[in-house]
Amino acid sequence: MEAARSAKTLIKVAGICGSLREGSFNRALLRAAVQICQAAAAGGEESSLKGMEVEIIDIAPLPMLNTDLEVNGTYPPAVEAFRQKIRDADAFLFASPEYNYSVTAPLKNAIDWASRPPNLFAGKTAAIVSAGGGFGGGRSQYHLRQIGVFVDLYFINKPEFFLKPFERPPKFDNDGNLTDEVAKGLLKSVLVSLRALTLRLHGER
Amino acid sequence: MEAARSAKTLIKVAGICGSLREGSFNRALLRAAVQICQAAAAGGEESSLKGMEVEIIDIAPLPMLNTDLEVNGTYPPAVEAFRQKIRDADAFLFASPEYNYSVTAPLKNAIDWASRPPNLFAGKTAAIVSAGGGFGGGRSQYHLRQIGVFVDLYFINKPEFFLKPFERPPKFDNDGNLTDEVAKGLLKSVLVSLRALTLRLHGER
Amino acid sequence: MEAARSAKTLIKVAGICGSLREGSFNRALLRAAVQICQAAAAGGEESSLKGMEVEIIDIAPLPMLNTDLEVNGTYPPAVEAFRQKIRDADAFLFASPEYNYSVTAPLKNAIDWASRPPNLFAGKTAAIVSAGGGFGGGRSQYHLRQIGVFVDLYFINKPEFFLKPFERPPKFDNDGNLTDEVAKGLLKSVLVSLRALTLRLHGER
Amino acid sequence: MEAARSAKTLIKVAGICGSLREGSFNRALLRAAVQICQAAAAGGEESSLKGMEVEIIDIAPLPMLNTDLEVNGTYPPAVEAFRQKIRDADAFLFASPEYNYSVTAPLKNAIDWASRPPNLFAGKTAAIVSAGGGFGGGRSQYHLRQIGVFVDLYFINKPEFFLKPFERPPKFDNDGNLTDEVAKGLLKSVLVSLRALTLRLHGER
Repeated sequence: MEAARSAKTLIKVAGICGSLREGSFNRALLRAAVQICQAAAAGGEESSLKGMEVEIIDIAPLPMLNTDLEVNGTYPPAVEAFRQKIRDADAFLFASPEYNYSVTAPLKNAIDWASRPPNLFAGKTAAIVSAGGGFGGGRSQYHLRQIGVFVDLYFINKPEFFLKPFERPPKFDNDGNLTDEVAKGLLKSVLVSLRALTLRLHGER
Repeated sequence: MEAARSAKTLIKVAGICGSLREGSFNRALLRAAVQICQAAAAGGEESSLKGMEVEIIDIAPLPMLNTDLEVNGTYPPAVEAFRQKIRDADAFLFASPEYNYSVTAPLKNAIDWASRPPNLFAGKTAAIVSAGGGFGGGRSQYHLRQIGVFVDLYFINKPEFFLKPFERPPKFDNDGNLTDEVAKGLLKSVLVSLRALTLRLHGER
Repeated sequence: MEAARSAKTLIKVAGICGSLREGSFNRALLRAAVQICQAAAAGGEESSLKGMEVEIIDIAPLPMLNTDLEVNGTYPPAVEAFRQKIRDADAFLFASPEYNYSVTAPLKNAIDWASRPPNLFAGKTAAIVSAGGGFGGGRSQYHLRQIGVFVDLYFINKPEFFLKPFERPPKFDNDGNLTDEVAKGLLKSVLVSLRALTLRLHGER
Repeated sequence: MEAARSAKTLIKVAGICGSLREGSFNRALLRAAVQICQAAAAGGEESSLKGMEVEIIDIAPLPMLNTDLEVNGTYPPAVEAFRQKIRDADAFLFASPEYNYSVTAPLKNAIDWASRPPNLFAGKTAAIVSAGGGFGGGRSQYHLRQIGVFVDLYFINKPEFFLKPFERPPKFDNDGNLTDEVAKGLLKSVLVSLRALTLRLHGER
């Protein structure tokens, strides 16, 4: 019984990074989220992140969206594989850099493929984290939220997560991993909030 | 027991209209929402709107927001009265006209007063309906949704409601009441969706 | 001849502050803009701000927008007086605080009154400055720019001006006047850019 | 002398379509714009479109943006070729479909490549046309305008162009070419407005 209950409350989060750069700070945020959930799982029953795991989904193989590529209701293999990952996910963690005051093309492309019929986001939950200059990636997040209205994603409202990697103190180590404790704490709060919203919308309480 | 259960599932919706005009089509949408819920209540147990009621809140008496008007943590009497209505509400139905591609000043003013500490929207649910030219008031809705991120409102994603009163067939009678059956049906769907989201976030299921 | 030419190149800028608070940092930005132009005028012919003056327009007397107040095509006296100021202006400097991730109600109200027929903004130029927490008022600016599409204002793109009054070093003195030299320099650049756009769109070059 | 003057007033408009679909209605709008300018040129001196030509730029060959592809300050060949077209253009006509309430990935990708240093849009002018369901592509246009703030494009405010291809009467013929006279007239007005803004900002008057 206990096992069944755990299975039911497991929340699979797909982490999607809008940058294809190898050294992307935004992808580093996703890696940190994976680790935060793993550490929480290792920490036992009482965690506020119990039963939550983040898997980073690679969007680099996706072709540029062109519905001419859809033949007889099937998608190109790379798209089908990606869509299966989205289908399996209960919730989404978008690492959304801001390029030219909006979301990046790779991120929009991935979302557009996942939203093709049947829309695989419908009714699911999401959160956004960003690292960048200026508003810390903030402008992209409001565009992403508007996109979410149509693809029917429910975003957590709070906390919002904007990180400025170029301000002191340093936020990442030389390997590009998130080390700033304040940022890690805020990232954990994002995950806790995403878990709570997901459970309230879809699961047990 | 049954009475207690009904009481628990009652959802109080505050209807707020962004236009102060007497003949406002947007206010007419709120009146129609009131009637739809009343008709559902009269229709008995099986309604998809069971236990939901809409009350229209008058925002005309509110002074223009100026935090200099807050003295020793108290608000002007008209503001206090308005805030009590917001405090009592479980959910919100905004009738949001589009003025100059955004929300109206009276609507923004009301929201800003309600969000003053303590923010009385926090964690509650909301839906938006609009009547107007062009996009049927649509542009205002996305600005309102961005406002909702900060005041911590959870909006339904679907259905969205945009009404074009100036297109055929006529949508309102000579008294300015909504008569179009398609629009009424969509408005009811908005309320059903708002009820479902509210129950999932806060109530029984 | 020279006098006539100077008269032709005079650019009247209406400064409009979205906060009604007496100690508003945003209004302080407008006062600083007035002084920068006055200092430039005193500095003689070579100034990059030659012939530009900023007048702060008081929007506190405006009633909340309600088109029922328009009788026989005339506006309430306070609105008419305000509209005359807008009619006389060649360009606009909006000091736009961010309330709940959008523009303030007083600012939207003023814009909506000025846009009533005939729209007194049509084809004119504008710039935005903001002081505030978070993004320094930034989210309000993009809503204001969308409003500008409909009221037909041409905004400068660069530089954008966001000021965070609560970060070190202090930006204002004890009387609430802008003292930070970096901010003053950026504010001057905004005015220079606004002047250049105005002259290119409407005047001599 | 006349030839020199004509050369000076020639306005080269780069037409960029956000859809890669062969049968895209949005690309059809660009073809119609090309023809409108050609017809105006054939019509002689008095045209309100004198000296304006539209060239459609193919964005399909562009790789997905990834700054790791920039080596020693050079771009991949397809990007360099595209950037040369953008460099040569005085103004831009974006045909912007709305996918999931925002711009398409291919369009964002093209813009992001063109904005890489040196930003080839800086200070130039632009207009947007859209065809689509719902708001006729409208939501994408406001995101595109926000993008334009950072890449420093000056968009015309009016007229805005939203086309609903699925409403009666038919707007396109069986070959997917724009045939609706009202739409053609509005498209011409967009081009006239873009020409006027371009001349005022950069050219003779």
